[in-house]
Amino acid sequence: MATMSQSLERAEGRQQLPRLQHHHILDLDDFSRDEIELVFQTADGMKDILSRDIKKAPPLRGKTVVTLFYEASTRTRMSFEIAAKTLSADVVNLAAAASSVTKGESLVDTVKTIQAMGADVIVLRHPSSGAPYLAAQQVRASVINGGDGWHAHPTQALLDMYTMRERLGQVEGLKVAIIGDILHSRVARSDIWGLSTMGAHVVLCGPPTLIPREWVAAAPSPGLDMEASPMPEVTVTWDLQEALSDADVVMTLRLQKERQEGGLLPSIGEYITRYQVNRGRLAWAKPKALLMHPGPVNEGIELAADVVRDAQSAVDQQVTNGLAVRMALLYLLVGGPQ
Amino acid sequence: MATMSQSLERAEGRQQLPRLQHHHILDLDDFSRDEIELVFQTADGMKDILSRDIKKAPPLRGKTVVTLFYEASTRTRMSFEIAAKTLSADVVNLAAAASSVTKGESLVDTVKTIQAMGADVIVLRHPSSGAPYLAAQQVRASVINGGDGWHAHPTQALLDMYTMRERLGQVEGLKVAIIGDILHSRVARSDIWGLSTMGAHVVLCGPPTLIPREWVAAAPSPGLDMEASPMPEVTVTWDLQEALSDADVVMTLRLQKERQEGGLLPSIGEYITRYQVNRGRLAWAKPKALLMHPGPVNEGIELAADVVRDAQSAVDQQVTNGLAVRMALLYLLVGGPQ
Amino acid sequence: MATMSQSLERAEGRQQLPRLQHHHILDLDDFSRDEIELVFQTADGMKDILSRDIKKAPPLRGKTVVTLFYEASTRTRMSFEIAAKTLSADVVNLAAAASSVTKGESLVDTVKTIQAMGADVIVLRHPSSGAPYLAAQQVRASVINGGDGWHAHPTQALLDMYTMRERLGQVEGLKVAIIGDILHSRVARSDIWGLSTMGAHVVLCGPPTLIPREWVAAAPSPGLDMEASPMPEVTVTWDLQEALSDADVVMTLRLQKERQEGGLLPSIGEYITRYQVNRGRLAWAKPKALLMHPGPVNEGIELAADVVRDAQSAVDQQVTNGLAVRMALLYLLVGGPQ
Repeated sequence: MATMSQSLERAEGRQQLPRLQHHHILDLDDFSRDEIELVFQTADGMKDILSRDIKKAPPLRGKTVVTLFYEASTRTRMSFEIAAKTLSADVVNLAAAASSVTKGESLVDTVKTIQAMGADVIVLRHPSSGAPYLAAQQVRASVINGGDGWHAHPTQALLDMYTMRERLGQVEGLKVAIIGDILHSRVARSDIWGLSTMGAHVVLCGPPTLIPREWVAAAPSPGLDMEASPMPEVTVTWDLQEALSDADVVMTLRLQKERQEGGLLPSIGEYITRYQVNRGRLAWAKPKALLMHPGPVNEGIELAADVVRDAQSAVDQQVTNGLAVRMALLYLLVGGPQ
Repeated sequence: MATMSQSLERAEGRQQLPRLQHHHILDLDDFSRDEIELVFQTADGMKDILSRDIKKAPPLRGKTVVTLFYEASTRTRMSFEIAAKTLSADVVNLAAAASSVTKGESLVDTVKTIQAMGADVIVLRHPSSGAPYLAAQQVRASVINGGDGWHAHPTQALLDMYTMRERLGQVEGLKVAIIGDILHSRVARSDIWGLSTMGAHVVLCGPPTLIPREWVAAAPSPGLDMEASPMPEVTVTWDLQEALSDADVVMTLRLQKERQEGGLLPSIGEYITRYQVNRGRLAWAKPKALLMHPGPVNEGIELAADVVRDAQSAVDQQVTNGLAVRMALLYLLVGGPQ
Repeated sequence: MATMSQSLERAEGRQQLPRLQHHHILDLDDFSRDEIELVFQTADGMKDILSRDIKKAPPLRGKTVVTLFYEASTRTRMSFEIAAKTLSADVVNLAAAASSVTKGESLVDTVKTIQAMGADVIVLRHPSSGAPYLAAQQVRASVINGGDGWHAHPTQALLDMYTMRERLGQVEGLKVAIIGDILHSRVARSDIWGLSTMGAHVVLCGPPTLIPREWVAAAPSPGLDMEASPMPEVTVTWDLQEALSDADVVMTLRLQKERQEGGLLPSIGEYITRYQVNRGRLAWAKPKALLMHPGPVNEGIELAADVVRDAQSAVDQQVTNGLAVRMALLYLLVGGPQ
């Protein structure tokens, strides 16, 4: 077993890779391949720490991490909290409902106040796309986007790719099928950026009403490459079998039941019939294809119960890796020699 | 004053007693007398630690304790939180209302996620009887039942018995009268198991509608022994004076005001008339009988204000001992040499 | 840079000043000038600690600080939490909505329970004036008033004065204009006590309906000194220009929009017209007058957006100093040699 300093040295991965160029983690659209590799190698060192009997390391001692969540969350907030505490940071949780943001305090005022209390990192989840960018302009602390509207969820995308690398050896060259409600998915958007940078091929698949309009308009027939899009090059199809065919990774997304009420889905039943991933359909992908989901899963809707945690599933591994990736980001932002 | 290692040695109590055979603490129905004694002796060592100026010991350093509460709680959640922090664990609090369990995430999915984040202990409170058993089947972490439905509240029962032992010398041979809403009380059920194992004699007393039906049916006249019950042998009576007569311990229970609306009580006033414990009625018990209540007390309903914190009351001592007993359990589950 | 022990020595300020005579911090009406100076000098040492790369000091190790908030709060609760953690205390947060206080548990029962769990400090915010006094009578722990009804907010007043001292050299002799809803402001009341003790001259200014009645009744014409009041001597005026004229400090207060619905304000628009502090009106005060606000600011109501964070504003500095002052209080109450 590696010693603590070897783990942190390994975590730093300084031999081969440049320093992280980012002071904030807002999205992956401006992350280089080298930076993503640096996060991965740092996370490898963090997994060493997590495998020990005493899961505790000192690099964030005396640092304050504030989680500021304007939306409910179990896993993302908890993952950041455990990540920060494992690295010996102090953590303060602010949930919108319990705080004076209910008095109508503005986001800018709130983050300036948090800054004035000496926060080193602010993890922000907000229902409005772009909110973390606004926050980042106002503070010296590092802002990490913990999910903003339909826009981005970069730490989820990093943990997704880290899990693919761990299970399949590398991200480059993989065919990754993302299935479901692409339109409202910040996870899908960040995954697309990251996967494209790392050289994977992304296929999007879902009902036409749940694929972003500009992409559908550009897709009169399934399978059209979207070279003209400002987003990375992806393939769009409405046909699940085509999407899964030859896929290395099947990434399913949570279907919000509200979408039916919103008129975007004729019925949940029809969604299940056409897009639910079950054991039979998973067989359309490569034999050892990885099944992923950002959680929480609607069992029986986007995923059949028999595949959620079977041998091909990486659902729980994604959660574990989320901890390691978030530890890596915290370490790279404020834990290393500055 | 004992040194830290002496306290922990004392806390371990290894000389006389076997190791704890349980990986989870779900109820007391399968705890042996030796195991309960081990918890008590370990708690003695924890009280040493709590009596110091610096109330801090290292055995849970690098361990993560998650409190997952699907019902509101001040004292139980706080008691576990302080117990874990005193032993240097990291604590993460998840309350149902603030987390994505409001998105309909299932208990199983939630605990698997918590496990995947490396939790060592999950303290679960849930309105459904049996929920901690379901959780325990799914995780490697130790699950501690922090109260499930009407079913069980084993740490409360352990602290109750620990308090009797501290104040009265031993539990064996005591007459313990449990007064009030037995039907809906998880505290009463766990107390009955623990007290019976330790050799106390339990008398249950309350309105017929608030005693479990199978017991009432078996009790055509007050005072019948329930030898045929699958539960331990207890005495049932509807008459408070009979219950208190010669009692060493008077354990009162919180009366939920909703019981009246539910038709189980003709009126709160009638309950008070027949079952409230006040100074005069407490005199029916032994002269130095211990008055207990799991809290929070409805002053003026199940207990008259003049006895809640008088010399015979152990109400605050129960809270203090709850901390020591929960420290002991955390230590025995994950803090000692594994 | 000072060493840790030098900072704490400086924080103690023992050379010149007596020990803190208070076991609780309930209001400033019984604080002597020497005691307030002691808090200031201790806070100076705390700012040293906060300026380090590793913001962590050991004096509250093994101590438990409980924040018990019956009203929503971002900044006060968070400020106490970070202050306590920076000094290595364990912190437990109890918010009324999430705890069994929703079951109707009384304040007295709750604080006795918190005491029984070994809390060393209880920080209490409560909508009822006087609640912290009631709590303090029941416990051995130190109670800090984190805001009670319209009555007092002593730590806010201390941080306000500390900020004046830091920016303007000293508090004595300053003219401090407090503008807005004085009637409902616990901040104003505690500021008046502290400022008077320190030898500042306080001017209160706001609509007649938002100045305490007894003062208005005593003020047939603006500017009357209130020597007969049981409160310290202050000047009252309804005219903003008169209040600001020659002021060293312009302290604005949050206007609760509910005041209009309550019939105390004809309209928010009229309030803005007569009492909003903007750049032009701020010029009525001394050239480098300090602009203060306890936060959160209603931008565009009591303060125009262009002055909230301009060079004269101390809004963020108040927040930073709040941390140092609360660290100082925690240290003086339970962190030093006892």
